[in-house]
This record gives sequence, C-alpha cells and structure tokens, in this order.
Amino acid sequence: MSISISDVMNGLATQQVHGLILVLKKAKEYAEESNTDAATLLAARLHPDMHPLSWQLKATMETLTRGSARLNHAEVIDLTLDEADFDGLIARIEGLQQELLVLDSALLDQSEAESFDVPIGPGATMPMTGKEYLLKFVLPNFYFHLTTSYDLLRMSGVAVGKRDYMGVS
Amino acid sequence: MSISISDVMNGLATQQVHGLILVLKKAKEYAEESNTDAATLLAARLHPDMHPLSWQLKATMETLTRGSARLNHAEVIDLTLDEADFDGLIARIEGLQQELLVLDSALLDQSEAESFDVPIGPGATMPMTGKEYLLKFVLPNFYFHLTTSYDLLRMSGVAVGKRDYMGVS
Repeated sequence: MSISISDVMNGLATQQVHGLILVLKKAKEYAEESNTDAATLLAARLHPDMHPLSWQLKATMETLTRGSARLNHAEVIDLTLDEADFDGLIARIEGLQQELLVLDSALLDQSEAESFDVPIGPGATMPMTGKEYLLKFVLPNFYFHLTTSYDLLRMSGVAVGKRDYMGVS
Repeated sequence: MSISISDVMNGLATQQVHGLILVLKKAKEYAEESNTDAATLLAARLHPDMHPLSWQLKATMETLTRGSARLNHAEVIDLTLDEADFDGLIARIEGLQQELLVLDSALLDQSEAESFDVPIGPGATMPMTGKEYLLKFVLPNFYFHLTTSYDLLRMSGVAVGKRDYMGVS
C-alpha cells in the first residue's frame, strides 16, 4: 500500500470539489438574502490587477480537468466555465466532479513515471514525470485557486467557514 | 515506485515553504519601499472576523510541524511563530524548513497505514490512517493557510506573483 495518483485525484474530486460546492451554495444563499447580484460577487478581486472570482473558479476546475487529461494521455483542452449565476455554476461543477470520479484509475496511475512536457508559461514547457506534475504543479495550482475563491467570498461577507472548505459540513 | 508520505512532505518543505520565503522577502521589500510597518501588514485580514496574516503564517507552518510530528509518533506541540518583523519571520521559517527536511523518511512512510486520532475540533477526534491524515487534513489545511497568507499580502499591495507562490522564482 502506498499513495497513488488516482488516490490523490479522487480525493480532490470527492472532498475538495464537494467543499467548493458547499461554499458556492452558501454564496447563493448570501446573494439571495442580501439582494446582491451574483455578478457582483463573481467580479470580486483581491487587488485591481488580480483575476476575479469567476476566473478563479474556472482555474480551480481547469487545473483538475487539464491535469487528469494530461495524466491520461487524453486531449488537454481549455475548460469553459462561464455560468453567470450560482445555480448554473454549481450544476456545472457537479457535472465536472462526476467526470473526474469515473476516470480510469489504472491509466492515471501508470502515468506516475512517464514523462510529460508541461507548459509553465508562454512558449515554455518543462519535462516532468506524472508524479512530479501532480505534486509540484497540479496540487499547488488547484489549492491556490480553490482557496482564493473561498477567500474572495469570505471577504465579500459570505458566511463560509473552514468546515465548508474542508468538505465536512 | 509510487508516492510516499515523505515525498509529499519533503516536496512541501522544499517547494512551497521556499515559495513562502520568497513571498515574505517581497513583503519585506514592500514594507521598506512604501514605509509601511510590518505590524500593519501582519494585521491584514480578509474580513474583520477572520484571522490576520500573522496567524495565517503560524497556521501554515504549524500544519507541517504538527503533521510531521504526528506521523513520526513524536510529541505534537503548538508552534510558536510570533516574530514581529519580516527578517525574524523569514529566519524562523527557514529554521523550521531545515527541521522538516531532515525528518526520518522511513519513519514518516511507515505511518501510512497506521491509525491516528486526529483532533478535528473542540473535544473531537477522528481516527485516520497516516495516508488519510496527509491527504484529507494536512494538505488542504497547509495550502489553505499558505494561499491565504499570499492573498493577504497581494491584497495589501505587495508585488508577489504566482511564480513566487510556486517557489520557482
């Protein structure tokens, strides 16, 4: 027994994407109760030159969908995630979660020692094994955009707590 | 070959704690150039009832020090991390990083299937294997406080970028 790539990817889809859905359900309640437009919340930024919440949500899920596609030797495509209200976003993310949960674990796991050219910036790629790609790239990027999404809603006044983020409520 | 607990913990100490140090070095530069007190930056919060940056930094490192102590069957103690300026914080975190890098990998790895009673709230514990504890508790908590620390400094105007967070600059 040890940790496999599919253990990690399934855990992210099960626990952390579940947590994101809990957070978005609270954002929806907040928008309704406070009479705030979803568009206002989705445009929240930490700094004028930083991406807004709508972009952070897309980046969170895209890190998983592109990451798992790469590890599965499937086509790596940009994700569309541009729903303008919380019901739409939640339904879309639940759909993506289901797709992640039915990925072929054996295919994911055999990528561990394979080499991938991972884009790391405009015109630049870096060779990494599947294991390096998961630990050094997918995990920090996923958690970065997930936490920043949470932080933006927390900053905006949505009553989310750590238990929502952790997917345990 | 597969992923071991020590692979993950060493990666966090090497890449992500390195990234945190890069971020704090930029915070130090910003404080000097803008004539801002370190205390002002360390008191930044996303919301009045959320913990400030000083607490987030402590929580980031404590998740690793307590996590690795538990997985090593060592005493799990609260961390002191209350330096009031960036030079002090950077030196302290560099010291903790060195302690994390010399942990006994074999001891960490043998915890994978062992059972631990993990505190999950006031008076409550949950039994988890070392593997579950790492994936479901240590990773999401560590990245939460790490990203929130970055977000607070970004919000405050410090010119940090994703490459700093990723530990690649």
